[in-house]
Amino acid sequence: MKPVALDAMGGDHAPHATVAGALSAHRAGVPVVLVGDAHVLKEELERQGGDLPIVHAPEVIRMEEHATEVRRKRGASINVAVRLVKDGEASGVVSMGHSGATMAAALFGLGRIRGVDRPAILAEIPSERGKTYLIDAGANADCRPGFLVQFAVMGTAYAEAVDRVMEPTVGLLSIGEEAEKGNELVLAAHPLLRAHSGLRFYGNVEGRDVTRGTVDVIVTDGFTGNVVLKLAEGEARTIFRWVREALTSSLRARLGALLVKDALRALARRMDPAEYGAMPLMGVTGPVFIGHGASDARAVENALKRAFQMGQVHLVERVKDRLEQPA
Amino acid sequence: MKPVALDAMGGDHAPHATVAGALSAHRAGVPVVLVGDAHVLKEELERQGGDLPIVHAPEVIRMEEHATEVRRKRGASINVAVRLVKDGEASGVVSMGHSGATMAAALFGLGRIRGVDRPAILAEIPSERGKTYLIDAGANADCRPGFLVQFAVMGTAYAEAVDRVMEPTVGLLSIGEEAEKGNELVLAAHPLLRAHSGLRFYGNVEGRDVTRGTVDVIVTDGFTGNVVLKLAEGEARTIFRWVREALTSSLRARLGALLVKDALRALARRMDPAEYGAMPLMGVTGPVFIGHGASDARAVENALKRAFQMGQVHLVERVKDRLEQPA
Repeated sequence: MKPVALDAMGGDHAPHATVAGALSAHRAGVPVVLVGDAHVLKEELERQGGDLPIVHAPEVIRMEEHATEVRRKRGASINVAVRLVKDGEASGVVSMGHSGATMAAALFGLGRIRGVDRPAILAEIPSERGKTYLIDAGANADCRPGFLVQFAVMGTAYAEAVDRVMEPTVGLLSIGEEAEKGNELVLAAHPLLRAHSGLRFYGNVEGRDVTRGTVDVIVTDGFTGNVVLKLAEGEARTIFRWVREALTSSLRARLGALLVKDALRALARRMDPAEYGAMPLMGVTGPVFIGHGASDARAVENALKRAFQMGQVHLVERVKDRLEQPA
Repeated sequence: MKPVALDAMGGDHAPHATVAGALSAHRAGVPVVLVGDAHVLKEELERQGGDLPIVHAPEVIRMEEHATEVRRKRGASINVAVRLVKDGEASGVVSMGHSGATMAAALFGLGRIRGVDRPAILAEIPSERGKTYLIDAGANADCRPGFLVQFAVMGTAYAEAVDRVMEPTVGLLSIGEEAEKGNELVLAAHPLLRAHSGLRFYGNVEGRDVTRGTVDVIVTDGFTGNVVLKLAEGEARTIFRWVREALTSSLRARLGALLVKDALRALARRMDPAEYGAMPLMGVTGPVFIGHGASDARAVENALKRAFQMGQVHLVERVKDRLEQPA
């Protein structure tokens, strides 16, 4: 089994969190190769009392640098990690570092799947019926209508392959359920989605449908999608903060809080973005996962598991198959 | 004191909820005039044991009709209500009926404030620092950069006048804090907002800042704003549903729930859209409030109070003043 390549230098808490997450994933059966400064990573592995293969990368793209630096710094950890996939030595890549640089490295290093104009980020948001697959969650701020159809096909392939959703339904994010409601982009994309024979198109959905779980896949441009993702995460944090405050607002509430603590903790965990670890960049020719810079070890572990699973289910091939089907 | 004109035929629960809300608002000191079918409203008032002035309107715009029907049905309740404001007989309008028709009736009947290209809907979203004023929450799906500057000015005037916020800060909703992050609209609007001397422009904000309360006023196009508003409301409902489930998931949790019930109920109430009642349509020459079709009596009451307050603080004049200031 090919390992997943982890950009071990990426993220606010690297290399501590990346190495710790890699060791946990490895113990859970996921083969991992660390990519980064071999000296630094060897020391960190020793400190944590573990052992994992390392591929040396002499450079790193810092958060404040421009994404195009991946063109210049050929030896950056993200470039080396992507090259391992290209060369068939790794099954996928996970990075908690510079998101733009990861996208650029994947695009330049692996290339797009035929039929994909723009790779897109897929986010999983907890919903009342399980989860909602949101695509694009931030890769493309401005989109053409045809991009949204490709996003829909990729989101459908992901839901089917990774979570075995049967015939996933697709909704187009808009400001009213009726086909004539929306902005110019949505009005133009709606009939294209409706006409596509390979999609189970539900029609327009609204903001409230994201957590309600009205459809499996929600398609939108990367601007709206990124706002949605960050609002969904931010609001969950805000409400849990308020719930904690409410539970300490009186002696009576504090007593009750002791009894409900465990039940609420399980819920908070379900809402925690770290459960999902990182987000796949859909549409490039290999599994690439982009994580939060603030990722902790658990997020790294979950991202590595998810990336490994994407390879196991041959997601890239399934996206290719679906894109080759007649619209 | 001029009364607020209530489109008493509008909304899913009219005339029961509209009349009940009007009676409550009246008891709280808000003068109200009911607009609609005089026979129906008289009967409803008798049933509820109250008395309020009625202005007869022989027609109504039904939810399934097109907004442009306001041009044809001159005797529709929303048209009659708007005309009362135009004729100086009412201080403002509240409608829980057809939103598009209310906007059209206000636009045709009252007209725009000079300097406003597009009226916009302002929504109030609870935040960790009180509330966030979101504008545009749905009136204009496609916007030009200059519209966003006008929205910022109107949002600033509202926060100052209605809630006495001192020097409200304004954020531009985007997908990264840096000025170079965003879609074409945001990239073009950013320097205009930055250059405006009458605004306290904070810069870009992200989805997470909506409930965090990073700024007072968040400016965005009506597509993104409507998605944000409906997601914010929908997610709050979803999380409270999950909290209720968690609190009944075991005997232990159920016992604790008895003790924390009151504290959580106060929180749920704070998150309830009915607290805000309805949303003002900013930029027309009179206070117009647009409510949820599903509004209950409490939402109607709160909307009437808010509309009355808008008249008391001379909001329209304050928006005019601010728009006349040099940019």
